Amino acid sequence: MTAAIDFYFDFSSPYAYFAARRIEQLAAAHGRTVNWHPVLVAALTQSTGTPLAVTVPVKWHYVNLDMQRVAAADNIPFQLPPGFPKLMLEPGRAMLWIRETHGADKAAKFARTCFQVYFGDGIDLADADVVAGIGASLGIDRAALLEGMASSAIKQQFKQGGAVAVEQGVFGVPFVIADDEPFWGYDRLALLERKLASAVLR
Amino acid sequence: MTAAIDFYFDFSSPYAYFAARRIEQLAAAHGRTVNWHPVLVAALTQSTGTPLAVTVPVKWHYVNLDMQRVAAADNIPFQLPPGFPKLMLEPGRAMLWIRETHGADKAAKFARTCFQVYFGDGIDLADADVVAGIGASLGIDRAALLEGMASSAIKQQFKQGGAVAVEQGVFGVPFVIADDEPFWGYDRLALLERKLASAVLR
Repeated sequence: MTAAIDFYFDFSSPYAYFAARRIEQLAAAHGRTVNWHPVLVAALTQSTGTPLAVTVPVKWHYVNLDMQRVAAADNIPFQLPPGFPKLMLEPGRAMLWIRETHGADKAAKFARTCFQVYFGDGIDLADADVVAGIGASLGIDRAALLEGMASSAIKQQFKQGGAVAVEQGVFGVPFVIADDEPFWGYDRLALLERKLASAVLR
Repeated sequence: MTAAIDFYFDFSSPYAYFAARRIEQLAAAHGRTVNWHPVLVAALTQSTGTPLAVTVPVKWHYVNLDMQRVAAADNIPFQLPPGFPKLMLEPGRAMLWIRETHGADKAAKFARTCFQVYFGDGIDLADADVVAGIGASLGIDRAALLEGMASSAIKQQFKQGGAVAVEQGVFGVPFVIADDEPFWGYDRLALLERKLASAVLR
């Protein structure tokens, strides 16, 4: 049993955004740290044969309502950005490069800022310039980030991370694994908290 | 806006069992009544192209754990009955016949008892004799119930009820519609309660 819990997310997921706002504080309250893992949810759900909600009209109608409702209940600034949903390659790759070059804390801060910019402010995030601008706002060299996130090594690492997630049993986002126990969905954070409160760290 | 809310469930769904234990009290606390609608979840999910969790190993592994966890957190007696899951034709049809012949309150009580017997006590419910026995325990004539639930009119009514549910946008269970607003999942009862608390009955 380690102090770290694993948090899997896709920058295109509103519920992952909701979870990303709380996960660090929730973990820290129980002496835990968070490993942030960007993945592409489309690759995960493909592994289970489940169509994404956005592709099923009756489900999308419901989810659209539910997201607004959950955000309102939890006082989370939220809007669906124009062109939603998009395949979030750029921020995921950028985050991995930042982790390699600036460390995990800076990368997690970058991820939280990306979520805020996308769902809080409604600014398109599937855009290398926007992503580079977010990096720059955190003191990261813009040109180096643009080059790094486009490198084949980082692209490969992002792809590989998704494959590892599937191997770990991750089939949706947000997804947390704590001491081998899986938690799927923003609405399972209360159960995660219950688990962390009762777990004994060795 | 009417005082009634619509509650859609399948006797084979553990999360519907959890919801069935709370829905009447939750509704009554806000001056509402509950219309109980038995449906077959397999027919609903077919309409969205979503495979049932029980057919996807990685998801079923997760859901199995989650059900136990939710039941423990909410102090709900729970066990997976032998042979789970089964197609729950018998109790759904029986409930509709009881509603026609003994009224909605008796039918709802029958439904709650069925859930308790199945998931609380772990007794197979896809069995006409067990269903008739539950009816008998509530003072319903056993032979009349067995005959009524096997009638083609009741079979047709059960099938038709599922089709109407799909038309209403119901794509899973448990599902509640209150004043045209949909709530999917046991984990959305808190949002339903929030809605009922703020709604003004006319």
